[in-house]
Amino acid sequence: MISRRDFLAAVGAAGGAGAMFATMGALGLAPTAMGTPDYQPPRPSDFTLGGRAAAKVIVLGGGIAGLASAYELGKAGYDCTVLEARDVAGGRNFTVRGGTRQTDLDGRTQVGRFSDGEYMNAGPARLAQWMVTLDYCRELGIPLEVFTNVNASALIYHEGMTAPVRYRTAKADVYGYVSELLAKATDQGALDSALTSDDKQRLLAFLEDWGDIGTQHKYTGSLRRGFSVDPGAAEQRGTVLGPPPSLSDVLASGVGRHFSFELEYEQAMLMFQPVGGMDRIPAALVRAIGPARVRTGCAVTGITNGDNGVSVTYTRNGQPQRIDADYCIAAMPPHVTAKIPHNLGAGVQAALSTYHGDPVGKMGLEYRSRWWETDHRIYGGITETDLDLDHVWYPSHGYHGRRGTLIGYYNTGDHAVAYGQLTPAQREARAVAQGVRIHGDKYRTELASSFSVAWHRTPYIEGGWAIPTDAPSYRLLNEPQGRVYFAGDWLTFLVTWQAGAFASARRVVTELHERVLKS
Amino acid sequence: MISRRDFLAAVGAAGGAGAMFATMGALGLAPTAMGTPDYQPPRPSDFTLGGRAAAKVIVLGGGIAGLASAYELGKAGYDCTVLEARDVAGGRNFTVRGGTRQTDLDGRTQVGRFSDGEYMNAGPARLAQWMVTLDYCRELGIPLEVFTNVNASALIYHEGMTAPVRYRTAKADVYGYVSELLAKATDQGALDSALTSDDKQRLLAFLEDWGDIGTQHKYTGSLRRGFSVDPGAAEQRGTVLGPPPSLSDVLASGVGRHFSFELEYEQAMLMFQPVGGMDRIPAALVRAIGPARVRTGCAVTGITNGDNGVSVTYTRNGQPQRIDADYCIAAMPPHVTAKIPHNLGAGVQAALSTYHGDPVGKMGLEYRSRWWETDHRIYGGITETDLDLDHVWYPSHGYHGRRGTLIGYYNTGDHAVAYGQLTPAQREARAVAQGVRIHGDKYRTELASSFSVAWHRTPYIEGGWAIPTDAPSYRLLNEPQGRVYFAGDWLTFLVTWQAGAFASARRVVTELHERVLKS
Repeated sequence: MISRRDFLAAVGAAGGAGAMFATMGALGLAPTAMGTPDYQPPRPSDFTLGGRAAAKVIVLGGGIAGLASAYELGKAGYDCTVLEARDVAGGRNFTVRGGTRQTDLDGRTQVGRFSDGEYMNAGPARLAQWMVTLDYCRELGIPLEVFTNVNASALIYHEGMTAPVRYRTAKADVYGYVSELLAKATDQGALDSALTSDDKQRLLAFLEDWGDIGTQHKYTGSLRRGFSVDPGAAEQRGTVLGPPPSLSDVLASGVGRHFSFELEYEQAMLMFQPVGGMDRIPAALVRAIGPARVRTGCAVTGITNGDNGVSVTYTRNGQPQRIDADYCIAAMPPHVTAKIPHNLGAGVQAALSTYHGDPVGKMGLEYRSRWWETDHRIYGGITETDLDLDHVWYPSHGYHGRRGTLIGYYNTGDHAVAYGQLTPAQREARAVAQGVRIHGDKYRTELASSFSVAWHRTPYIEGGWAIPTDAPSYRLLNEPQGRVYFAGDWLTFLVTWQAGAFASARRVVTELHERVLKS
Repeated sequence: MISRRDFLAAVGAAGGAGAMFATMGALGLAPTAMGTPDYQPPRPSDFTLGGRAAAKVIVLGGGIAGLASAYELGKAGYDCTVLEARDVAGGRNFTVRGGTRQTDLDGRTQVGRFSDGEYMNAGPARLAQWMVTLDYCRELGIPLEVFTNVNASALIYHEGMTAPVRYRTAKADVYGYVSELLAKATDQGALDSALTSDDKQRLLAFLEDWGDIGTQHKYTGSLRRGFSVDPGAAEQRGTVLGPPPSLSDVLASGVGRHFSFELEYEQAMLMFQPVGGMDRIPAALVRAIGPARVRTGCAVTGITNGDNGVSVTYTRNGQPQRIDADYCIAAMPPHVTAKIPHNLGAGVQAALSTYHGDPVGKMGLEYRSRWWETDHRIYGGITETDLDLDHVWYPSHGYHGRRGTLIGYYNTGDHAVAYGQLTPAQREARAVAQGVRIHGDKYRTELASSFSVAWHRTPYIEGGWAIPTDAPSYRLLNEPQGRVYFAGDWLTFLVTWQAGAFASARRVVTELHERVLKS
């Protein structure tokens, strides 16, 4: 996943975080009201009061940006039609269940064999509290539950470890030694130029508590590492895991590099997911738009911008079709749009061509038992690895049920490319072999079925996401080109997030509506 | 809440954590299978195969320890009767809903006015993944959902702050400055005696990432602090909260003292709660035991241990009653048992008298809107204060619903004593006035109703918990006294936790069953 810092640098927000700081004042001035600028959806009364008529809009792409555009415009009576090339709306918001069928660019077809109630969210899967996606869930009546992005009982597994280590254990050791070292330097006076006497006293009190290093300022292990025999009744006081590895071993293990993830603005818990699958969102949007307005199986073949309208050609069931409208919102991936003939000019084409779909892979593994709960006491969360699986996710729902579906890998870059080149059966074999190293034999023996998505090899999507890399192109495509608007997370500072698609849709809808009201 | 360390010291596990470490080996050897010793419930075949008969057992107290004892013994056909003084089983596992009625020791009666679906778990409310309570939920078919014990968007509010600060902001600042200081000391060579060259390189790489201090090793704020205007579409790159307060101000604020909570073995996320209320557990136990065997409204008045059985007297509807059995399990709070006449001897009485019920208070506040979600983007979690509220909990269920119920305070010690002395209306007024300081006026204006429990003023319970303070007494009461066994979390290394009640019940059941099989 791209870091926001890398992205900000790419699109020209130079100087990193420091340059962007507003003068919000010091400690305690964090506003508790959140910072989503007011958004006013178009209203029917905008027209009835203004004596103007809603326009006809054709939306290209039935992903979240396209559906949200049609949904918001529909509130004011716009006549919207959404053309979606795939056989289901939602785009990367794609939940695989039993019976889900998908054919990749290589012509390999998979059919989901998941049991009733089991599913995998193959695309977006987690919603941060501050994201606008939650507002849509509330507005559309989609129940939420916690997405378990971080779990102290989940594991870290790096090559060379004889066994995985739990997050709680790794954190106790890293935080313990960090505290010991900083306390040592403080006690020695090495930081006297940076710390007042009060500062030192307060810092040491913090380190003693947070690092569990006692007044000796020595890390010798901690109850926080966990227990090999849990505390219980009478004389069963529990057997603490220990002794801890040495400072050098802890640093060499590299476990600490996973600890900043949960501090990120996008990833910090608590996070959420729709009950029943992420595709509850596009399903609710389609219902609200009106299913007849969302045409699936319609691949766009041409976009012609004119003085008085836009004309779009497409195929449906192999038959060429054409639709005309006052405006068009092109909400397809930019690298897909770049392959479609249009008359928007060389500048637009060059700008679209600065985007590339990134390789991203995800596999769902349904198991006949929830051995990670019963055997390992892992109820949700993510295990981090340096294997080519990258991440293993435990399900955030159905606790204690008969079956459950892991995300067996969620990977990017070379790892996603490597898995994507394999057949689905080969992917499963590879992922399971790796997972066995972490979890033991049940990772193989309890497996019921799998389904894998290589987004970069998925027709009409061709990438897990597309990151802006050129600021002028980003700006150009964020402006209407004649009567054509572009929308998508790739035009936002929330790129890779579903919330970006919503934010872009709101912006385009607002601009288009203002134009219509003025026209 | 008592720390495990304090408790271990109290019961004679001297030397703290270090002395208890088993030789579990170094990094990576954390076993992923958890350490609950095998428990074998009594089976009917234990009797049919052995030619012996199940005994008659009277259980005093229908809290979790008592119910679990009867449930486990019932699996083998023991004839159990549970006497519960209150009008509902569960003990401190007590969920308040609309219509719940409770009269305290001062004779003040409250009736819950919560709306349908709203409730407060007045006693235990969170289950750690490793706790045996989860096994009972699985066995009894009680669905679970995440209890939101930690939330980056929740708040910290200390006296003197002009406004609360979010956890995410506080963590960014504390971790940032800690990293800057430790990097500085490392760069200066102050830790050269403790760190090899490789260690230093790895430590600095960790600090740069985890503290977000860059290669300059300087904390100047971070995107992790959060945004006053969130990132969005086009040019809306977001306005990061900043600049951060100075190192001295961050240390003086004391926000860092809340960060070790989530590292504790008992408190680390992920945690869980039964869907619909914690009392789903006693309700399921009562169903499994057989409701006719659980007699509520029965206050024990005497316990007589004899050579061939136990005789217990009690009152029901004011009428004296008597019941005889082969064995007795006294699963009441020890300080309550100590007030009941018995013939178990002065040693037992002295041992019981070493326990005292601790003051603990909790208030549920039902609101007509979920303003913490809509206005503050706080979906669950806990806000920490140094006000007499101690903790404010946001609900872990019903997200985006019409209404919701906060825990307005959860306090102990002097704070619990102070609130307990007030009338329920006074408690509400005090808690709301404090909460307004953190959350603003809606904390008052949106309030629908409240319910408060002062456990130390609750008949037949008289304390939030009772901590062992004397090792010989703890050991004595963990042994049968004639035909009387004691059970409860106060006889375990899981004191204050429901899991302790289950663990104690399992132990007593195992010992009693072995005795019966040998008798």
